Amino acid sequence: MVEYKLLNKDRYSRARLGKLQTRRGVIDTPIFMPVGTNATVKGIWQHQLEEMGAQIILGNAFHLYLKPGLEVMREFGGLHAFMNWEKPILTDSGGFQVFSIKDKKVTDEGVLFRSPIDGSKIMMTPELSMEIQMTLGSDIAMAFDECVAPGMSREYAEESVTRTTEWAKRCISYHDRSQALFGIVQGAFYKDLRKKSAAEITSMDFDGFAIGGLSVGEPFQVTKEILEYTVDLLPEDKPRYLMGIGSPDLIVTAVENGIDMFDCVLPTRIGRHGTALTWNGKINLKAAKFKYSKDPIDEECRCRVCQTYSRGYIQHLFSRDEMLGKILVSYHNIHFLLKFTERIREALATDSFKEFKEECYNRGLIKEALISES
Amino acid sequence: MVEYKLLNKDRYSRARLGKLQTRRGVIDTPIFMPVGTNATVKGIWQHQLEEMGAQIILGNAFHLYLKPGLEVMREFGGLHAFMNWEKPILTDSGGFQVFSIKDKKVTDEGVLFRSPIDGSKIMMTPELSMEIQMTLGSDIAMAFDECVAPGMSREYAEESVTRTTEWAKRCISYHDRSQALFGIVQGAFYKDLRKKSAAEITSMDFDGFAIGGLSVGEPFQVTKEILEYTVDLLPEDKPRYLMGIGSPDLIVTAVENGIDMFDCVLPTRIGRHGTALTWNGKINLKAAKFKYSKDPIDEECRCRVCQTYSRGYIQHLFSRDEMLGKILVSYHNIHFLLKFTERIREALATDSFKEFKEECYNRGLIKEALISES
Ligand SMILES: [Zn+2]
Ligand SMILES: [Zn+2]
Repeated sequence: MVEYKLLNKDRYSRARLGKLQTRRGVIDTPIFMPVGTNATVKGIWQHQLEEMGAQIILGNAFHLYLKPGLEVMREFGGLHAFMNWEKPILTDSGGFQVFSIKDKKVTDEGVLFRSPIDGSKIMMTPELSMEIQMTLGSDIAMAFDECVAPGMSREYAEESVTRTTEWAKRCISYHDRSQALFGIVQGAFYKDLRKKSAAEITSMDFDGFAIGGLSVGEPFQVTKEILEYTVDLLPEDKPRYLMGIGSPDLIVTAVENGIDMFDCVLPTRIGRHGTALTWNGKINLKAAKFKYSKDPIDEECRCRVCQTYSRGYIQHLFSRDEMLGKILVSYHNIHFLLKFTERIREALATDSFKEFKEECYNRGLIKEALISES
Repeated sequence: MVEYKLLNKDRYSRARLGKLQTRRGVIDTPIFMPVGTNATVKGIWQHQLEEMGAQIILGNAFHLYLKPGLEVMREFGGLHAFMNWEKPILTDSGGFQVFSIKDKKVTDEGVLFRSPIDGSKIMMTPELSMEIQMTLGSDIAMAFDECVAPGMSREYAEESVTRTTEWAKRCISYHDRSQALFGIVQGAFYKDLRKKSAAEITSMDFDGFAIGGLSVGEPFQVTKEILEYTVDLLPEDKPRYLMGIGSPDLIVTAVENGIDMFDCVLPTRIGRHGTALTWNGKINLKAAKFKYSKDPIDEECRCRVCQTYSRGYIQHLFSRDEMLGKILVSYHNIHFLLKFTERIREALATDSFKEFKEECYNRGLIKEALISES
């Protein structure tokens, strides 16, 4: 259901430029995917996502199962029609969301928990997750996995890798392949468990592979080390997706290690609190020092916000708790990450990713200047 | 600073079609003016107001004086540049807002109150209101008046009319006429006081006249009666502005009585709570009955929301408390009132206002079918 085409490889790293053919058109990789958990990227109209150049967005099986529910989704004929978005959608399986619920019971069958909406008991299983995602009609579905919380024992992580593999088998066996299906490699921060998980998951008939369980609170060096180690265990001819990353430093690290896809709620979450991503680092627009500033959020940004509004005006909106403040910074941040990733693709197309990374380092966007040898 | 040109008069009522020349272009009247109290129409981008056909918006002297304050306004060169809105702006004097503060002291000098933002003591005077509005650089400024709360004694209302007249004189004497200046007729619900106020205010050199102190909680029949009575006391060659109305029934009543301009926070305030204005009356999109509805908010509406999103999707957004729900209904509501007023102008241009009113009655948008005789 998806086909990955390699277009160019970086000489100094594992970074790669490619294209991913989906049933709703081609996506340029590496790609940043804005997150629309509840069938909306917070504060942004769907046509604004298009105007910014978003090629694919995320929906969430767990949240959309709770609300509006599958009956509504069937009535509308899927998530695309429901939210009026015609480009590709990738749906998260709900694994990560279920595991962030505190009061739950994990068995080999699935996860039993109470709905955060109405308190009713729900048993989330690999089969149910597949059923939800097939009903949502996303273009890429994710296998239902167990994402281990940081701080769990090695014993638990080991058990969890086994369970994730069993669940992956059940996903493949239940799924009708009307949409692409990606497997997820787990294994916490243990290399041997990552190796085991990767071997088991990649032996199955998935259309692409994701690395889960990273960027869950661990230090940058740990993320980087496990990422480097795990990517090598994934096949070259399938797309690779690193889940839950969206800061410029992690994006560069991901791309450098051969990741093709990534997603994060970061641009809208920090945007709602007034923090903007810029080509010279983060700034917080709530700061009083911006009160008189006629400058745009980012001089180099060509987005609608930066072409129109000043830091001073946005500071004022936040000081009055006006909705438009959150909207403008969220919009700019999504635009920033889409353009940041576009710059990466341009660099990969012109064999200048190393120079791009050096530029990022000089601007303070990333912490490490050296390209790790591949 | 403004010039009113009468284009057509209705045969059955005092309704009139006109044009108002301002220093930032011509406004078609009757006109609905969206309210941007804090230099933002809540949840809406400025270019979206333009795309909907807004010709003039409101700013608020009181709120903008408190935040961001005059120093910021001077630095930016006025409200237009600050918020990036190039079309006309009318600023409210702050009279209404000051009077809705509970803990205050009204003297002939002005109104002493504590800032709701930092608790500091502020003395709002006619001179300060003029200074603020000149600094904001709006195209139409309003005189600083005393808006009497409903339920005040006749004695107080009488005293207040005298004060409003004295303050009007001080506004005229202080104002530099770099912008148009409108006087405001008060007098609560007493016809003789309205007569006194109208005689005194219209004897002064104002560019237009507003009727204040209506739509403050009184029954529709009272609004209508005082409005009918008061409009007759205003000159024909100047624009007439009824403050604070925005529901279709009050708009029709206002227009029918020869009002040219009106404003209201209604479209965004009710929009944030899920209530949409439609050509068949109000609906609340939070209602569970819309969960499966693929219909737009309003079949007849050509706005961006109704061309794209369904009632079911919007119901979902409200059920998840998603910002986009508030944004979409606010947008639709503003668009609705702009189009509603445009339809009124078309009716007046084609001598069919009576038919338009009948249509509104048949649709349940207004309560009274008969055109009152003029
Ligand atoms: Zn920008
Ligand atoms: Zn509409």
